[in-house]
Amino acid sequence: MVDFRLDDELLALRERVVTFIRDQIIPYERDARQLFHGPTEALRLELVARARAAGLLSPHAPRAYGGLGLDHRAMAVIFEAAGYSTLGPLALNIQAPDEGNCNLLFQVATPAQQERWLAPLYRGETRSVFAMTEPEGGAGSDPSLLKTTAEPDGDDYLINGRKWFITGLPGSAFQIIMARTLDQRGQDIGATLFITPSEAPGIEVVRMLDTLDSNSPGGHCEVIYRNLRVSRDQVLGEIGKGFRYAQVRLGPARMTHCMRWLGAAQRCHDIASAFAKQRIAFGKPIIEHQGVGFMLADNRIDLHTCRLATWHACWLLDQGDKARAETSMCKVHCSEALGRVVDRSMQVLGAMGISADTVVERIYRDIRAFRLYDGPSEVHRWVLARD
Amino acid sequence: MVDFRLDDELLALRERVVTFIRDQIIPYERDARQLFHGPTEALRLELVARARAAGLLSPHAPRAYGGLGLDHRAMAVIFEAAGYSTLGPLALNIQAPDEGNCNLLFQVATPAQQERWLAPLYRGETRSVFAMTEPEGGAGSDPSLLKTTAEPDGDDYLINGRKWFITGLPGSAFQIIMARTLDQRGQDIGATLFITPSEAPGIEVVRMLDTLDSNSPGGHCEVIYRNLRVSRDQVLGEIGKGFRYAQVRLGPARMTHCMRWLGAAQRCHDIASAFAKQRIAFGKPIIEHQGVGFMLADNRIDLHTCRLATWHACWLLDQGDKARAETSMCKVHCSEALGRVVDRSMQVLGAMGISADTVVERIYRDIRAFRLYDGPSEVHRWVLARD
Amino acid sequence: MVDFRLDDELLALRERVVTFIRDQIIPYERDARQLFHGPTEALRLELVARARAAGLLSPHAPRAYGGLGLDHRAMAVIFEAAGYSTLGPLALNIQAPDEGNCNLLFQVATPAQQERWLAPLYRGETRSVFAMTEPEGGAGSDPSLLKTTAEPDGDDYLINGRKWFITGLPGSAFQIIMARTLDQRGQDIGATLFITPSEAPGIEVVRMLDTLDSNSPGGHCEVIYRNLRVSRDQVLGEIGKGFRYAQVRLGPARMTHCMRWLGAAQRCHDIASAFAKQRIAFGKPIIEHQGVGFMLADNRIDLHTCRLATWHACWLLDQGDKARAETSMCKVHCSEALGRVVDRSMQVLGAMGISADTVVERIYRDIRAFRLYDGPSEVHRWVLARD
Amino acid sequence: MVDFRLDDELLALRERVVTFIRDQIIPYERDARQLFHGPTEALRLELVARARAAGLLSPHAPRAYGGLGLDHRAMAVIFEAAGYSTLGPLALNIQAPDEGNCNLLFQVATPAQQERWLAPLYRGETRSVFAMTEPEGGAGSDPSLLKTTAEPDGDDYLINGRKWFITGLPGSAFQIIMARTLDQRGQDIGATLFITPSEAPGIEVVRMLDTLDSNSPGGHCEVIYRNLRVSRDQVLGEIGKGFRYAQVRLGPARMTHCMRWLGAAQRCHDIASAFAKQRIAFGKPIIEHQGVGFMLADNRIDLHTCRLATWHACWLLDQGDKARAETSMCKVHCSEALGRVVDRSMQVLGAMGISADTVVERIYRDIRAFRLYDGPSEVHRWVLARD
Repeated sequence: MVDFRLDDELLALRERVVTFIRDQIIPYERDARQLFHGPTEALRLELVARARAAGLLSPHAPRAYGGLGLDHRAMAVIFEAAGYSTLGPLALNIQAPDEGNCNLLFQVATPAQQERWLAPLYRGETRSVFAMTEPEGGAGSDPSLLKTTAEPDGDDYLINGRKWFITGLPGSAFQIIMARTLDQRGQDIGATLFITPSEAPGIEVVRMLDTLDSNSPGGHCEVIYRNLRVSRDQVLGEIGKGFRYAQVRLGPARMTHCMRWLGAAQRCHDIASAFAKQRIAFGKPIIEHQGVGFMLADNRIDLHTCRLATWHACWLLDQGDKARAETSMCKVHCSEALGRVVDRSMQVLGAMGISADTVVERIYRDIRAFRLYDGPSEVHRWVLARD
Repeated sequence: MVDFRLDDELLALRERVVTFIRDQIIPYERDARQLFHGPTEALRLELVARARAAGLLSPHAPRAYGGLGLDHRAMAVIFEAAGYSTLGPLALNIQAPDEGNCNLLFQVATPAQQERWLAPLYRGETRSVFAMTEPEGGAGSDPSLLKTTAEPDGDDYLINGRKWFITGLPGSAFQIIMARTLDQRGQDIGATLFITPSEAPGIEVVRMLDTLDSNSPGGHCEVIYRNLRVSRDQVLGEIGKGFRYAQVRLGPARMTHCMRWLGAAQRCHDIASAFAKQRIAFGKPIIEHQGVGFMLADNRIDLHTCRLATWHACWLLDQGDKARAETSMCKVHCSEALGRVVDRSMQVLGAMGISADTVVERIYRDIRAFRLYDGPSEVHRWVLARD
Repeated sequence: MVDFRLDDELLALRERVVTFIRDQIIPYERDARQLFHGPTEALRLELVARARAAGLLSPHAPRAYGGLGLDHRAMAVIFEAAGYSTLGPLALNIQAPDEGNCNLLFQVATPAQQERWLAPLYRGETRSVFAMTEPEGGAGSDPSLLKTTAEPDGDDYLINGRKWFITGLPGSAFQIIMARTLDQRGQDIGATLFITPSEAPGIEVVRMLDTLDSNSPGGHCEVIYRNLRVSRDQVLGEIGKGFRYAQVRLGPARMTHCMRWLGAAQRCHDIASAFAKQRIAFGKPIIEHQGVGFMLADNRIDLHTCRLATWHACWLLDQGDKARAETSMCKVHCSEALGRVVDRSMQVLGAMGISADTVVERIYRDIRAFRLYDGPSEVHRWVLARD
Repeated sequence: MVDFRLDDELLALRERVVTFIRDQIIPYERDARQLFHGPTEALRLELVARARAAGLLSPHAPRAYGGLGLDHRAMAVIFEAAGYSTLGPLALNIQAPDEGNCNLLFQVATPAQQERWLAPLYRGETRSVFAMTEPEGGAGSDPSLLKTTAEPDGDDYLINGRKWFITGLPGSAFQIIMARTLDQRGQDIGATLFITPSEAPGIEVVRMLDTLDSNSPGGHCEVIYRNLRVSRDQVLGEIGKGFRYAQVRLGPARMTHCMRWLGAAQRCHDIASAFAKQRIAFGKPIIEHQGVGFMLADNRIDLHTCRLATWHACWLLDQGDKARAETSMCKVHCSEALGRVVDRSMQVLGAMGISADTVVERIYRDIRAFRLYDGPSEVHRWVLARD
């Protein structure tokens, strides 16, 4: 039967995360060891160490990997709580793209691959990369435009191509590269995923992108692969199934974006509400001016429906349903409605809202990208229309 | 734990309602015995008889009263299915204001009052009225402006005042009238609810209102009470607690509006979707033009979040929570989002959308009122802001 | 140089129209001689007689035809003032489709055709019809789907086909019918416009459509042409140029819709503003609640930008520019923004807004169609995107 | 009569500005001499020198001051053309707050003050500051909360207080400070404006604010005044008329914001349109997907109505009208509609939109503040509602 009650165990865990984020992580938000696109690796490891000490590291990891083994619904609750700080997901090791890569490797990688790449990732020791998007008319919203190729060369493959908006490459341990695979006769046999160390001969970071958002350690870069040699055992899953695996990764990854941003938007709303209760203008606290109060009311409604849509899609995933339509609806709704929440919170704060005096300014920049990545709203609407 | 599964029993019941509405009720939608604001009493009784025969009458009524004894969550599912036809709620006897009056009488009325007024109402034999709203600056969004008075006269009260937008009076069995109550010294001792037969000396229907909507048998009227005599045993609950009882009635009544309109909006979306798949323009079915397809995608998202918000508030009510904020959020969201769904459906249908060739035109008119009654969006936002 | 000053002469004329509408036409709005889709012909002629007596009839007509010979900018001002009453455009004889038909006949018709059809139309003695839209996958937003045919038969043509949403047919003097024209060998030689009397052998009104709007005398009907015989001198302009002429008609016709609806929306705003200043709730006039005040502020902004966009496109037309993009932008903006103005006005009025106690309810129904006719917003956006 | 024609002279001037911006200024946009909040003073002077050489410097200045002596309508055209580059307004010396300060000084300052402060400002040699906004509950949207005081001390005044979001202070020549003025007995005699050099004993820049926007050389700072001594001849205009003068400054200043942002938003739209025509996805240029095409169509409509509203308010100002309501409507409409244009342009660009590879990312950050400064939308709506 329809039920929205959270288990006592989950409530207790959420309480621990809320406390941990408030007491141990939010104070780091003004730590100077954040440059460009986020914390230095030293700071990241310090945050991870705190989460480990608190028993909260990698809640998404199976217990065998030292995690909390949460299902999607429980993840929704815990990831939201972590997202309340811009550093929370990093601390708990549930940041994109690592979190989605974990999920992919757990489902598709060989035991040897899991041992080498997945285990340290789950332990928060490393970071990872998912390299798909290409410049100049290559793969993007329409992945079929994939231009990077993997050609057989003896028992190996040679990868050639150019990618951009590749998140987190500097400082990461490995990348998962999507490439159009050719057979011996040069025939296209479909996209394949390959795992390679992040630094290797043939990998050149051409430039770092300067972007609106700033919540990815390692930032976003443009990278060229020139005869990057990968062996057969670096193939992730089966040859030619790259698009299928990308889908396996994307559905849940979309949901974890919704969860984390829900926490971030809730934070903005809380900051704006507290401000509106205390700031006086025209003779009374500004929350008592309906122009302000209604923005906060709309925030509550948006946060509420986003949370419900997230929980629902997670429940479907927990039932083994792929929830294609529901995760698309959830992604469109959350990226747009939570964006509105952050925008209204900024408006309520007035001039202070556009300064870094609160975290709202940072989240305003970061959340804009949410309407674009993992498929812009337009692609999801198109999927929903044709469904 | 968070769960969205519907019990097999409920699914079976929903299936029966869906079939009943589709096969037995929708065909009546073009029945000529609908004038002004809905079916004649003869037609209404015919619909009720069909529901009774199908074992689907009064799903909200306790089993003791011959109903199905559903909780709020189950009501959400069944009422939505009934709302799929403009005549469905009437057939199942879950139309406003009767449904809300049932709930109120069940909670507050004396056994004698229940025997006399509630039992036949639950059986679908009668209709009823809730008389609160007043013209000319009287009670409305702000009920404290209540002008109608009940003054003691011996052991009785004499009610004087004028009400308008009183729904369903002609043809109904009884009304529940809210009046500001005076004590012997003329002191205001608060609002009180009184039950009176719909026709009695001192009750004069001044005029029928011509309104945009047309889904209330009996329409909306303006009525004058001139020394309407009511005895002590016609007091509903306690003297002076009228506002409190109105709140008891309103919370769940808001939710049942959401349920029924959800079904109506889903109907419009289904009609528009079917049309868009088959109608060709500029070389292909119009659903393949993103301008149309995106409207249908947005409909899906709106319907989805409205359904989830409704289920959630119902779950809270089922836990005994008054769910003040959640029913307000749900009412604002549903009245606005479902209104958009119907509007987009009309736009997709083009010229046909504004004709009575489909039921969309009718629902477009009817649903507009949903943003106004039971508190306009502005009052609910204000409640949410101050919460 | 950019100038928004209205000539004194035009201001004086506007003042006369404002006074005329307020004193002589608005009082007719509750005249009982309005059934179904507007005034009876007797009432219409009475209104026209008043405008004639006031020297205000047919301001769009050239002086040679007894009109005021206004250019488009002056029409914008005067038509808006006329649109302030739902009966104003009928009184001044500037209602659709007559106004657009006048314009078309003036540009394309032969002197004999003008003498017979145009002159009495300009004098307000007759009404007329433009018959293009077809059911069941025929001409609509995509006119190329035109199914009605005109086949040569001796010196004549025989028209066969079915049209719907044909406005104003009963009671009108003539129709302009668009038909796909075949040559002697059955080859399609393009769409042609034909003028025929409204009643003739072969014309059958199949049914009247029941529609949301109600501002067209004669309503909207479905009509069948069965071997309707038309002679060569009933061809309007040249054979095969029907689509081109329809464009000639449509550009200015779109603008006159914007003008009239601007007046209607301004009326709704004025009604809502007056109400909001006088209606008390929660301790003060509701206009002082920002939730209400902001709706009225947004109304002002929408009315303002619609007026400016209308004036601008009219200026272009007055320069001989076809203003394709500008009339499309204006049509989309006005139909949507003025629709919002009327919707907000209704919301401000509360329950009264959905009753016929004010004209807002009527305008709310009527203006919805504006987003659909003369090309739905989607078609105009498409034109603008590809431009 | 209503006219939208631009004089040949103005068209020629616009053409020169368009060419100048395109050929000489846009290439500087990637100049490395831009840190924090804009160009270094050296770069700024280089840009100014180019405008001077092109005869385009200070188009708003009277001819007596070496400017072009444009009226508001001509400024609308020229400022829009300048705003097409993020560096254009700086080059032409029409950037906020200098441009508004010029206007204020021209109207209110004594000849000696004009000679000392205004003349070099008009010549682009200096920058200036308007210091009104205060932290911690001081002056902001509600200027009556002003806390900074000016107390008489002999023939001088001593200013004490704290201001923030003070734009452009480091590197500027002078500031105009608003302070609550006390008389000898400590009675508040109203707000007064004082002119002081930007560096003087008693002025301490406490910190630079880190903000979302980055288009103000000198950035935004927080500043403390501690017994800042100002003499009587540093009073701008009359004692106690500070609020009145702020209004004098604000009306036209609002309009010049609209003009510059109009150019900036047009730039974003042009970039997005060019991209959409060339970028292929799902088999065709993305502009041919309606999901993208409709965003560009809406951009056109928003740009169009913003331009018309700006021209209209400017025309009123040129007639000597204060245009209170019209400048408020224009400010609300432009800040919101142009914000939507930039947001849609970013969405069309996809991932590239959030990178600094185009100027859209920069403008997206900058334009957000437009909804907040010179009165947030909420204050203007409130003014419009009460009007």
